Amino acid sequence: MTSRYDFASDNTAPAAPEALEALVAANTGFTSGYGTDPVTAHAADLVRELLDADAEVRFVASGTAANALSLAALCRPFEAVLAHEHAHVCTDETGAPGFFGQGLGLIRLPGASGRIEPAALEAALAVPDFSHRQSAAALSLTNTTEYGTLYSAGALEALIAPVKARGYGVHLDGARLANAAAAGFDLKAIKTLGVDLLVVGGTKAGMPPTEAVVIFDRALARRFDARLKQAGQLPSKGRFYAAPFIGMLGAGAFVRHAAHANAMARKLAELMPFPVSHPVEANGVFVDMDDVTLARLHAEGWFVYRFLDGSVRFMCSWATTPDAVESLGEVLSRLS
Amino acid sequence: MTSRYDFASDNTAPAAPEALEALVAANTGFTSGYGTDPVTAHAADLVRELLDADAEVRFVASGTAANALSLAALCRPFEAVLAHEHAHVCTDETGAPGFFGQGLGLIRLPGASGRIEPAALEAALAVPDFSHRQSAAALSLTNTTEYGTLYSAGALEALIAPVKARGYGVHLDGARLANAAAAGFDLKAIKTLGVDLLVVGGTKAGMPPTEAVVIFDRALARRFDARLKQAGQLPSKGRFYAAPFIGMLGAGAFVRHAAHANAMARKLAELMPFPVSHPVEANGVFVDMDDVTLARLHAEGWFVYRFLDGSVRFMCSWATTPDAVESLGEVLSRLS
Amino acid sequence: MTSRYDFASDNTAPAAPEALEALVAANTGFTSGYGTDPVTAHAADLVRELLDADAEVRFVASGTAANALSLAALCRPFEAVLAHEHAHVCTDETGAPGFFGQGLGLIRLPGASGRIEPAALEAALAVPDFSHRQSAAALSLTNTTEYGTLYSAGALEALIAPVKARGYGVHLDGARLANAAAAGFDLKAIKTLGVDLLVVGGTKAGMPPTEAVVIFDRALARRFDARLKQAGQLPSKGRFYAAPFIGMLGAGAFVRHAAHANAMARKLAELMPFPVSHPVEANGVFVDMDDVTLARLHAEGWFVYRFLDGSVRFMCSWATTPDAVESLGEVLSRLS
Amino acid sequence: MTSRYDFASDNTAPAAPEALEALVAANTGFTSGYGTDPVTAHAADLVRELLDADAEVRFVASGTAANALSLAALCRPFEAVLAHEHAHVCTDETGAPGFFGQGLGLIRLPGASGRIEPAALEAALAVPDFSHRQSAAALSLTNTTEYGTLYSAGALEALIAPVKARGYGVHLDGARLANAAAAGFDLKAIKTLGVDLLVVGGTKAGMPPTEAVVIFDRALARRFDARLKQAGQLPSKGRFYAAPFIGMLGAGAFVRHAAHANAMARKLAELMPFPVSHPVEANGVFVDMDDVTLARLHAEGWFVYRFLDGSVRFMCSWATTPDAVESLGEVLSRLS
Repeated sequence: MTSRYDFASDNTAPAAPEALEALVAANTGFTSGYGTDPVTAHAADLVRELLDADAEVRFVASGTAANALSLAALCRPFEAVLAHEHAHVCTDETGAPGFFGQGLGLIRLPGASGRIEPAALEAALAVPDFSHRQSAAALSLTNTTEYGTLYSAGALEALIAPVKARGYGVHLDGARLANAAAAGFDLKAIKTLGVDLLVVGGTKAGMPPTEAVVIFDRALARRFDARLKQAGQLPSKGRFYAAPFIGMLGAGAFVRHAAHANAMARKLAELMPFPVSHPVEANGVFVDMDDVTLARLHAEGWFVYRFLDGSVRFMCSWATTPDAVESLGEVLSRLS
Repeated sequence: MTSRYDFASDNTAPAAPEALEALVAANTGFTSGYGTDPVTAHAADLVRELLDADAEVRFVASGTAANALSLAALCRPFEAVLAHEHAHVCTDETGAPGFFGQGLGLIRLPGASGRIEPAALEAALAVPDFSHRQSAAALSLTNTTEYGTLYSAGALEALIAPVKARGYGVHLDGARLANAAAAGFDLKAIKTLGVDLLVVGGTKAGMPPTEAVVIFDRALARRFDARLKQAGQLPSKGRFYAAPFIGMLGAGAFVRHAAHANAMARKLAELMPFPVSHPVEANGVFVDMDDVTLARLHAEGWFVYRFLDGSVRFMCSWATTPDAVESLGEVLSRLS
Repeated sequence: MTSRYDFASDNTAPAAPEALEALVAANTGFTSGYGTDPVTAHAADLVRELLDADAEVRFVASGTAANALSLAALCRPFEAVLAHEHAHVCTDETGAPGFFGQGLGLIRLPGASGRIEPAALEAALAVPDFSHRQSAAALSLTNTTEYGTLYSAGALEALIAPVKARGYGVHLDGARLANAAAAGFDLKAIKTLGVDLLVVGGTKAGMPPTEAVVIFDRALARRFDARLKQAGQLPSKGRFYAAPFIGMLGAGAFVRHAAHANAMARKLAELMPFPVSHPVEANGVFVDMDDVTLARLHAEGWFVYRFLDGSVRFMCSWATTPDAVESLGEVLSRLS
Repeated sequence: MTSRYDFASDNTAPAAPEALEALVAANTGFTSGYGTDPVTAHAADLVRELLDADAEVRFVASGTAANALSLAALCRPFEAVLAHEHAHVCTDETGAPGFFGQGLGLIRLPGASGRIEPAALEAALAVPDFSHRQSAAALSLTNTTEYGTLYSAGALEALIAPVKARGYGVHLDGARLANAAAAGFDLKAIKTLGVDLLVVGGTKAGMPPTEAVVIFDRALARRFDARLKQAGQLPSKGRFYAAPFIGMLGAGAFVRHAAHANAMARKLAELMPFPVSHPVEANGVFVDMDDVTLARLHAEGWFVYRFLDGSVRFMCSWATTPDAVESLGEVLSRLS
């Protein structure tokens, strides 16, 4: 029996054809390095168009590094970033923010289904500066969240406003921004929200490894290439990181594929015989499942993870097929 | 007139067909993440075979990060790495070793044409520990060197022996290891030399961005994935970094393409009307050329760099054509 | 009305006469720098004698730095230190461990009254390595604890044994080691417990700013002076950090003064009209007190802090007088 | 025979009586911690008065840390500090700037007798930003210099102007600022020069370990205490760092003692039978002396160092006696 990783994560899928074809198409002729090539320029234009924003755009290899470098740009070592306690930067990056940010702190905020509780944020912001603690200097948000839920633009605005009022920075982890867009989040609204640095996820959206860093606050763009180069994130062959975005953004595949992933999650939720723990608003389904059942599911060849809150996570991607959802649904029904 | 980047660097070329085809071929089905997939396992086997060595192998996105993480693994912040004063780690990575290594020092050694002068190394090793300076803890070597010259296995051995005798670590930057192999360097000899960490360059060898980190000293492998993850170098979709190595190593394209690049450099050297500054032993040709002439060359559309020692550098790659060499040769003759 | 800081902390007191007299006595003639002077050698001997241990000893200016450097010596950036969730290193050093340790993680463990719950430690140790999280590499202990309680040698042994069994390091923060000794903790037992690095607090024990770093694991001592120098903790005029230890250790004042501080805390506990929250085993008394009462106490001129667990903390020191305890007791009675 | 360290450095001397008496005098009663006490406030006022400047002042334990933290406040990890190649920050602090500044670079500038050559600075400033190198972000100056020479206010102004014109920061290492003042440098002029951060040396001026960090650019003062605390430089018992400044500044001992040290150096230079290598403008005398002679001098019990430029350094301090100078002069005459 082969293990099936279809639902283990949205990075177990191959790259979507549009992304890979663009990569292959870009692989021609000699070109200048380190992001100065025309492919990169074109892809940056498309990202700006996607966001309807006049921002600086860079393409890098790693979402972990993109996030951590963003936080390091917004927060000094003796300060801290406010984030959801289960945000990827807090739980799943081996302390990358502290590594790239030389020990910068993380202030972990609660909130149902991955969305920061506004009152918790307000309370954290109200803590007076005290030189024995790392005081807040920035807010990190994630949309869609780790629990497959969506922040509306209004919800983000409400979280961001008190942060900007204090002059603090804002980072938006958009590893699953495509899924947010497909769920109705207006990407063109981001530019008005006060986000300083945005990471637009390529990898989970169906590209080969690539992420776009969008620098809304142009002051932060000064010497950003040097920052990237020092951190091993200024790729010499930049076109390989840019081209997939051309393939995905050019004809709308970015959001279209994410809409498919979201639809597959909804379909799975409908078939799901176990209690669903979080609203299914994007491409993930989280359920209550005991260890014995999970072990039996693994024994059936379907690999999925128990997540931070104790629920079991099923992720869909551009490549998830209705057949796979149905097959899984049958197995789950049998196990339930 | 279009700018021509053929000779600006060996990373201006597209990926070689063997590499890209393997990447496309690997892009099928769901697979597990973070380097646990069968594509990665296969590629690691091929790297071990290439080196005839039972070593740990990881695939990462960035040579800068691969080098810097290696140095950080071998040297504490209050210690220093010995390296050629013009080594990539010293001159072209925006201080990445100090960033990844929290301020670790670099002791810059002289040596003709990019090869460390053994007497200078011995002298540096003989400096007694002094707590007000960063004392040596590791040696970083590069083969082929920044000046397109080759270390023989014997030459490396002579440099490494006194370093290992002191219990210090050894890193080999193999960004152009393929060119070294094509120039006669026996890759299977590396395992006997005392190298602890080797970076096998994929990018400059004609792959999409990927580098293999080879961990000969197994003690260093402990928690190395955590080290990579924290540094943004543990790719979720590992197969995209591994597959190109399969395409290039499987049928010998790795060394064959490098042999072509080396041959193009020799051809260019033969046609070169300007004095050649360093022995042409691999894929680079360095020449004496004044600023006026360089500006005229740029004006003709051929982009190349003035290098660290003041010479002008022409790099060849797997994709360099004899026609391009001849065209360039004609332009150069006209300018000389 | 003058503010009274007698009970705000044990670092609000002046230096004890024995410490200051030794400092003045050492202030004569020229001597060599950076800890190579005879005063430092003598003080190191006395620390070794205190601990009955053949260990390396260094004197530094800052307990925060001493702790953070110790943790950085035991734990790499992609690893984590296990510590009580209210340990000074976790709560009161502005993230110093992450700064000195380049982002090293802290795994916060619960436990009543500042003592780590053994089951919580065992559970943390049982977590399998996972490259997306910072896995444990060391344990940090504090004796006496932040809540004025004491670990017995046996209790420390029980916590340390499973840590050493995994090959992990152990740090003991002895900012209040004198109080522990005065409470019956046998300092000569430390050497058998598996502690790798110990910080013996001078400042809170009644000295001008100075802390002794004791290196039991001699392998860690290699280039430790360079580590200190780089971190700004290798004082040029070493005798000023060493001499107070001579004054305090030579005639037993170190433990004698701590015994006085502990006795004052017991006396205060006896007079205390508010419920005491933690066992009074050393020099601190923690009580339940509401905000209004605390504000009234401040208004009376007595400054004390609300602590991490919500209780209000009263610290005694070598300089606390019975009169002060009685005066405070009367005020508290009036407010209760 | 006893070794004599009189001339080995200006930190081999004991503390001056004024400094120690003030420290003893401050050692009375309970007071608030972490620099909030009245002794610290008074000392800060005196430093402001010394400089005739409305600046923030902090007292820390270590000059190395004070310098490195200042540079980290002015320069990001992917940028570099311009400094004389033999400045203390470049040569004698075990890479502390890179440690505190997470790999920040140092651009080493030449210049006779420790003074930066203006043309070299201009050339370094003219280097265009390039993302593969650490571009300049700040200038670090030292007065008096490592070679006992003095910058005039005009000379500093000429160096600082082009730096500030680019918006870069300026740090002044005043480890021997007292000697500069005694040599005619107007301390009240510093505030007009564009210095952002100044370290006023206490230790070498004859105090127990203490340095004053003066923050002219108030924007840099934000959360500076948190910066200090995280770095182990926010002393709990602040009065011990502040009091010596009160003793030394209150009655002019700071400059008076430095004037004595400078005079002793001039006296030594007059008696010196070996060629003097650098102008004797402050408290150091540097001479040409071969290894055999130096060994004989050591054998006579007089300890001095061979310095970075190969000369042998003799330092005078507040405690240097005319007798000692004469005794040394006789020995040197005998050896010459």
